[in-house]
Amino acid sequence: MSAHSFDALVQALRRLPGVGVRSAQRMAFHLLQHDREGAVLLARSLEAAVSQVRHCVRCHTFTEDEICVTCSDPRRDASKLCVVETPADQAALERTAAFKGMYFVLMGRLSPLDGVGPRDIGLGKLIERISDGVVQEVILATNFTAEGEATAHVIAQALKSRGLSVTRLARGVPAGSELEYVDLGTIAHALVDRR
Amino acid sequence: MSAHSFDALVQALRRLPGVGVRSAQRMAFHLLQHDREGAVLLARSLEAAVSQVRHCVRCHTFTEDEICVTCSDPRRDASKLCVVETPADQAALERTAAFKGMYFVLMGRLSPLDGVGPRDIGLGKLIERISDGVVQEVILATNFTAEGEATAHVIAQALKSRGLSVTRLARGVPAGSELEYVDLGTIAHALVDRR
Ligand SMILES: [Zn+2]
Ligand SMILES: [Zn+2]
Repeated sequence: MSAHSFDALVQALRRLPGVGVRSAQRMAFHLLQHDREGAVLLARSLEAAVSQVRHCVRCHTFTEDEICVTCSDPRRDASKLCVVETPADQAALERTAAFKGMYFVLMGRLSPLDGVGPRDIGLGKLIERISDGVVQEVILATNFTAEGEATAHVIAQALKSRGLSVTRLARGVPAGSELEYVDLGTIAHALVDRR
Repeated sequence: MSAHSFDALVQALRRLPGVGVRSAQRMAFHLLQHDREGAVLLARSLEAAVSQVRHCVRCHTFTEDEICVTCSDPRRDASKLCVVETPADQAALERTAAFKGMYFVLMGRLSPLDGVGPRDIGLGKLIERISDGVVQEVILATNFTAEGEATAHVIAQALKSRGLSVTRLARGVPAGSELEYVDLGTIAHALVDRR
């Protein structure tokens, strides 16, 4: 094909996570053939986000201000700090309406194989954050995956002997599930963590 | 989250085919956290493609010129016109190096359920294209899917009684395959189309 800018668009789309060459071609074709308005909208949204989105200086989540809405909310309990991997995880916790404390968003997880170390998840910043004299409990709410568990372990070690309580979300049987259909590992953890 | 432009980016990414809200969030997070350079590159590629990519006036494929490279090539056999659904299909045929004629790219396929009718695939333009007094054979190379077959059928009907030969790619057993593992419909077609 003689459309150089079509090929360049396919290459640029391939930088998106989970997008291979076939998907990128399908996306480029769709945008140029059926949704040029969507293509322009996407271009403008990308530019706006790159120029406006930065990280909250207190919790590291995405924000357009120096301090995000959550960190600026005086009604929240500043003695509790919940550590999550991503803004999406924070959003999941917020949907439960069961937590009214503050957050620290790692914006990732430890992954030595991918070269993601303690500095990349802002461990130093987290230690600085919890040393404000107000935080009394740190709740580790990283994912219950191998990497999430390893991340929680490393953070717990780093926060040890700093005179505050470090807890972890309970592992257990999901609400509404029948034991017969729950995997063995989950049941085993629920037994260990029984209250 | 207080980042409006992050949410706007997620919405814009959802216009890409095959991208749901979870994928869009993952893409936006990846671009803003790990690849802002890629985000800027994608924005620029989108803008360049939207402003520069248009359709070849002879074959309808994407091009940046009035007439595409293939249609402008004097070494190609202008008596044969191969009708394909998309530029990707044309590229697949070109890779075989088995066809040296011209193309007409429908940029889609008939799909009444999605509101894609004969006008949307340029049937009128195709009839105009084959009436140049040079084209003698039209090879229908739409996909061997229900929609591709229906598209080939409608085009064959429209080109009937115009004094040119209309052929279809042969259906049959893929090269290199063992009959034992080929599906029944393919074997049945290969029997019917035996030479
Ligand atoms: Zn914040
Ligand atoms: Zn052309």
